[in-house]
Amino acid sequence: MELNEALKKQLDHRTIRAFKEQILSQEQLVTLLEVARHTSTSMFMQGFSVMHITDPKKRAAIRNISTQPYVGANGDLFIFMVDLYRNYQIRKQTGHDAGRVHTTDIFLQAYEDTVLAVQNVLNAAESMGLGGVILGSINNDPAKLVEVLDLPKLTYPVLGLQVGVPDQAPQLKPRLPLEFIAFGNDYPKDFKASDLKDYDEVVQTYYDLRDANRRIDSFTNQVIGPKLSVASKKRDEQVKVLKAQGLCLDFN
Amino acid sequence: MELNEALKKQLDHRTIRAFKEQILSQEQLVTLLEVARHTSTSMFMQGFSVMHITDPKKRAAIRNISTQPYVGANGDLFIFMVDLYRNYQIRKQTGHDAGRVHTTDIFLQAYEDTVLAVQNVLNAAESMGLGGVILGSINNDPAKLVEVLDLPKLTYPVLGLQVGVPDQAPQLKPRLPLEFIAFGNDYPKDFKASDLKDYDEVVQTYYDLRDANRRIDSFTNQVIGPKLSVASKKRDEQVKVLKAQGLCLDFN
Repeated sequence: MELNEALKKQLDHRTIRAFKEQILSQEQLVTLLEVARHTSTSMFMQGFSVMHITDPKKRAAIRNISTQPYVGANGDLFIFMVDLYRNYQIRKQTGHDAGRVHTTDIFLQAYEDTVLAVQNVLNAAESMGLGGVILGSINNDPAKLVEVLDLPKLTYPVLGLQVGVPDQAPQLKPRLPLEFIAFGNDYPKDFKASDLKDYDEVVQTYYDLRDANRRIDSFTNQVIGPKLSVASKKRDEQVKVLKAQGLCLDFN
Repeated sequence: MELNEALKKQLDHRTIRAFKEQILSQEQLVTLLEVARHTSTSMFMQGFSVMHITDPKKRAAIRNISTQPYVGANGDLFIFMVDLYRNYQIRKQTGHDAGRVHTTDIFLQAYEDTVLAVQNVLNAAESMGLGGVILGSINNDPAKLVEVLDLPKLTYPVLGLQVGVPDQAPQLKPRLPLEFIAFGNDYPKDFKASDLKDYDEVVQTYYDLRDANRRIDSFTNQVIGPKLSVASKKRDEQVKVLKAQGLCLDFN
C-alpha cells in the first residue's frame, strides 16, 4: 500500500513549538476554522466553540497561566472550549428548562466534540505545511483562564492550539510500540513493566541526541517521576471550576 | 489558496454508517493503528489504548449496548479507551505509589489523548477513501461495556470508531455557520437564539431532502427536544462507572 500525503504527514507528526514571525493569512485562518466546523459532533449538538486570540494582553495572560514561553509568542493561538452556553440559551430563550446541559454525560460529549475539532484543525494545519502544538497547559490555572477569557457559565476551555510556520525541525519522538497500546478482542491485563526495557532505551537515546546537556529520562522514569507524582493543586482546581461553570453537577 | 486533498476531505466530511462487506487489509489496519500511535499525547504519558473488536459475540454485545443496528455490522470496529492501567502498573511494579493516576486532571489528559487519536484515525481512514462513524453510543450502558470488554480498573472506553468501504453517499450535513462557533478575543455572551432562524431552515431542508417521510427537526428543535431533555439514567451511570474504575476520585 502506498501512503498518500495525508498519511505521510500523520505518521511524521512532530510537535512544533517555535514559529516564524508570520501570522496566518485570512484564507488559511478561515480554512482552519471551516475544518473545525466540519468535525464530527455528538448527537448533532455542536457543543464546542473556538476563540482566536490575537490580543497581546490576553496572549500574555495565557502564557503566564501555561508557564510555557512559546505560548502566545509567534504563531496563531486558538482556545477550543466546551460550549453548552449556546444550547442552554436556545432552550432558555425559547422557554425551556436547562434539560441535561448540567450533566457529566453531556459535558463529556461536548468535551469529545472539542477535542475532535482540535485534532482535525491540527491535521489541516500540517497538511498546509504549517506546524502546531496542542496546549494542555492552558488549564494550569483554570479559574484564571475563565476570568481572562471572560467566559460565561456552561463554557469550559479544554485545549489551546498554536499553529504557524515552523522555525524548528525536531526529531520524531519515539512512541510506545504498537503491541503496548493496540490490542485485539482481549485487553492484556498481564502487562509487564519490564517489557519496556528496549523502548526505554530508545526514548533515552532520543533525548540524549536532542540535548546531551539536558538529561531527560526514559519513558518508565517519566511515568514514575514528578509528572504523575507531584501534587498539582492548581490543575486539580479543574474539578471546582467545572462545577462553578455549571458543568458536571451530577458528579459527586 | 488552493485546497490540498487532505483539506478537501476534511471539508467534505460526512459520517458513513453503512459499509460494504469487506474488512480492512492488514496493511490498512496497521497503518490506522500507527496513525493512532503517532497522535499528540499530553505530557508524553501516552494515556490511551485501542482495541480492534473482531469477535462476533463482542461485536453483538456492543451493538446491543449502542442500540444502533450498524454497530458491529459491516466494517472494522475499534474501541478507544483511556488507559491509565499501564502507567499505574509501571509505577506499582517498580515500587511506586499510584501518584496522580486517580485524579480528574490526569483522567482528562488521557481522555484528550484518546479523542485526539480517534479523529486522527478517522482522518487517516478518510484519506484512504474509507468512511467512518464515531460511536458515542458505546457508553449507553458503561458498566456493561466494561464487563463485555473485561477491562481492568484505570481504563475507560471513550469512543468507538467503525470504518470501512462506504456503502452509502449521504449529503453534507449543514453545520452552524462559523459566526456562531468561532470568535476572536471576546466570547459573545449576547447570543440570540432567534438569529438561528436561517440556519434552522437549512437544517430542516437537509432532513426533508434526506428522507421526506421521516421528519427530523431543525437544529433549534433538536436542542429543545428529547436529546437534551429526556433523562438518560444509563448514560448518567458514567459518573458511577468512572469512580468504580478508579478514575476521577477527587471529583466530589
